[in-house]
Amino acid sequence: MKGFVFHGPGRSAWEDVPDPGIKDPTDAIVRVDAVTICGTDLHILKGDVPEVPSGTVLGHEAVGEIVETGSDVRTVRPGDRVLASCISACGRCRFCKDGAYGQCRGGGGWILGHLIDGTQAEYVRVPHADLSVHPLPGALESQDAVLFADIFPTAYEVGVINGGVRPGDTVVVVGAGPIGLAAILTARLYSPERIIAVDLADSRLEAARRFGADAVVPVRDEPEQLVADLTDGIGADVVIEAVGVPESFEMCTRMVRPGGRVANVGVHGKPATLHLEDLWIKNVTITTGLVDTSSTPTLLRMAASGRVPTSELVTHTFPMDQMEEAYEVFARAADTGALKVVLGEQRHDELAVPAA
Amino acid sequence: MKGFVFHGPGRSAWEDVPDPGIKDPTDAIVRVDAVTICGTDLHILKGDVPEVPSGTVLGHEAVGEIVETGSDVRTVRPGDRVLASCISACGRCRFCKDGAYGQCRGGGGWILGHLIDGTQAEYVRVPHADLSVHPLPGALESQDAVLFADIFPTAYEVGVINGGVRPGDTVVVVGAGPIGLAAILTARLYSPERIIAVDLADSRLEAARRFGADAVVPVRDEPEQLVADLTDGIGADVVIEAVGVPESFEMCTRMVRPGGRVANVGVHGKPATLHLEDLWIKNVTITTGLVDTSSTPTLLRMAASGRVPTSELVTHTFPMDQMEEAYEVFARAADTGALKVVLGEQRHDELAVPAA
Repeated sequence: MKGFVFHGPGRSAWEDVPDPGIKDPTDAIVRVDAVTICGTDLHILKGDVPEVPSGTVLGHEAVGEIVETGSDVRTVRPGDRVLASCISACGRCRFCKDGAYGQCRGGGGWILGHLIDGTQAEYVRVPHADLSVHPLPGALESQDAVLFADIFPTAYEVGVINGGVRPGDTVVVVGAGPIGLAAILTARLYSPERIIAVDLADSRLEAARRFGADAVVPVRDEPEQLVADLTDGIGADVVIEAVGVPESFEMCTRMVRPGGRVANVGVHGKPATLHLEDLWIKNVTITTGLVDTSSTPTLLRMAASGRVPTSELVTHTFPMDQMEEAYEVFARAADTGALKVVLGEQRHDELAVPAA
Repeated sequence: MKGFVFHGPGRSAWEDVPDPGIKDPTDAIVRVDAVTICGTDLHILKGDVPEVPSGTVLGHEAVGEIVETGSDVRTVRPGDRVLASCISACGRCRFCKDGAYGQCRGGGGWILGHLIDGTQAEYVRVPHADLSVHPLPGALESQDAVLFADIFPTAYEVGVINGGVRPGDTVVVVGAGPIGLAAILTARLYSPERIIAVDLADSRLEAARRFGADAVVPVRDEPEQLVADLTDGIGADVVIEAVGVPESFEMCTRMVRPGGRVANVGVHGKPATLHLEDLWIKNVTITTGLVDTSSTPTLLRMAASGRVPTSELVTHTFPMDQMEEAYEVFARAADTGALKVVLGEQRHDELAVPAA
């Protein structure tokens, strides 16, 4: 089969790789019908995630069909249409027993396209299949469903739920990329009073407004002042960091009200400064997190019934064998306007560049 | 009357000051029977809390008797024995309505000995008396009760409750001064599996063990390794920071397990480094906070019934007019072994230096 292989920093190719087979009785083999590219994949290509072995097939998000299962797999069988989640879970360790699948110590966690071969291929082996793939509601298109492998549960669990968004809250989302936009969409489920989106790029702020932000503000226009003005000088109830750089995190801690929450979703490569000399007295809560995907079945059900709209997030689609072109378009998002690129069964090049 | 007056950094005296009187109809005047000195008072004397006006009577913790009330005070009257809390509360602003009295925007919060004259005097005016003094159970000695004006609710709310201590948890308390020791005593209310105390000083660690720490470790002996060894390499469920320096806070973030909580209680004067490059993926929660004192009535009731033992925390007592000597003993705690010093009605100099 073909797969997209990481050959060390700066080197990768769509090339022949061995077909995966069942190695453990809890494995399933999935034929990949739709796959997407994550910002984390770009980090891996740059060499920012050094634990990824050279020779690894990348990708941790896919929709496909089960073609083979190991002897211990109970809940799915060949022919089932499933979501392959970014998080695998043994279901038996202390973290899994607590629903903290992202921290699985039994051979799960984020392993696909990280510690073992991933989803950017024609087939993928998914370990611990019973807890690591999710049967798909029939009504959900593959290119929508694939967004629930990572970005929707990440934005929802690590941003909205960790942030404790409640009805009537003022919510600030810093970073209006795919994760920030999914945070806006899922924060709305809790009926906040207003959502304020902050980004460097006007194009992303336009998308944020279409996705439900009540106010948008570019970084150059003093977002902290706007938040203060809109909240009687008190600050936001919840601030969601969806960028992953120190400046952005530190801005979040300046915009939160006393007693408020900062939910960090961004993947960080550097330390930030925590201004405890200001914050010690403010009763703030700061959370970080890798997604557990415990919300995935619920989100899929809500997406199937239309409660979580998705399709505007997919700006570009490609056939699978144009993986290298798709990476190029995604990496140059500032120029191409790409939010999520999806590869697979749909065979027209640009499906849904968001309209105003 | 006499009071202990701050005259700018490095200058203070026990001296004549005007008697306080009712200024607002919600005020009460309290005759001070017992008062203590807080580490924060030392910070003020050093000039670390620049908003304190020169000429302010210090102190934000006292037990005494109501001698006069304004016309709007409903719940206490002259003759009542009360605790004057470190936090005053208007009861009417959005923060008070949410129980977040520490963040009161209606003229309360931490004001005594900070923005207005405090408790280190023969009499004190307490604004918003209905929500800012607490009637005392008869069974509680004044020198025990005064510990509930600040350190017990602070350790309990900002350390134990914000830290989310649960039965079976491994809890680390970094800093075994009065706040850390009160955190140990109140963490035990939640039946943790073990409490590990960390400090620089062996004498404080001995106190920590007497107060209920199951393991103690000096900073020089690699506390992070001990915590890892005791938790199968996973880390502590809850880490409470009760020091207030960057090194201590950063140690806390290295000792917490994935999914665990760091509760900062320390008063910080400098920023810390937050290693988001390690923490983003660990699902940690970090909290900060000024106490609300919403737990004070409950803690007082539990102290009166013996559920929260207190008296070993008071190592030195003085008559009120030896305020300057008491500050000296408290400031040189490393030499004198002082935990809390109490001034007032008890007239012997050293009541209860803790015995082994």
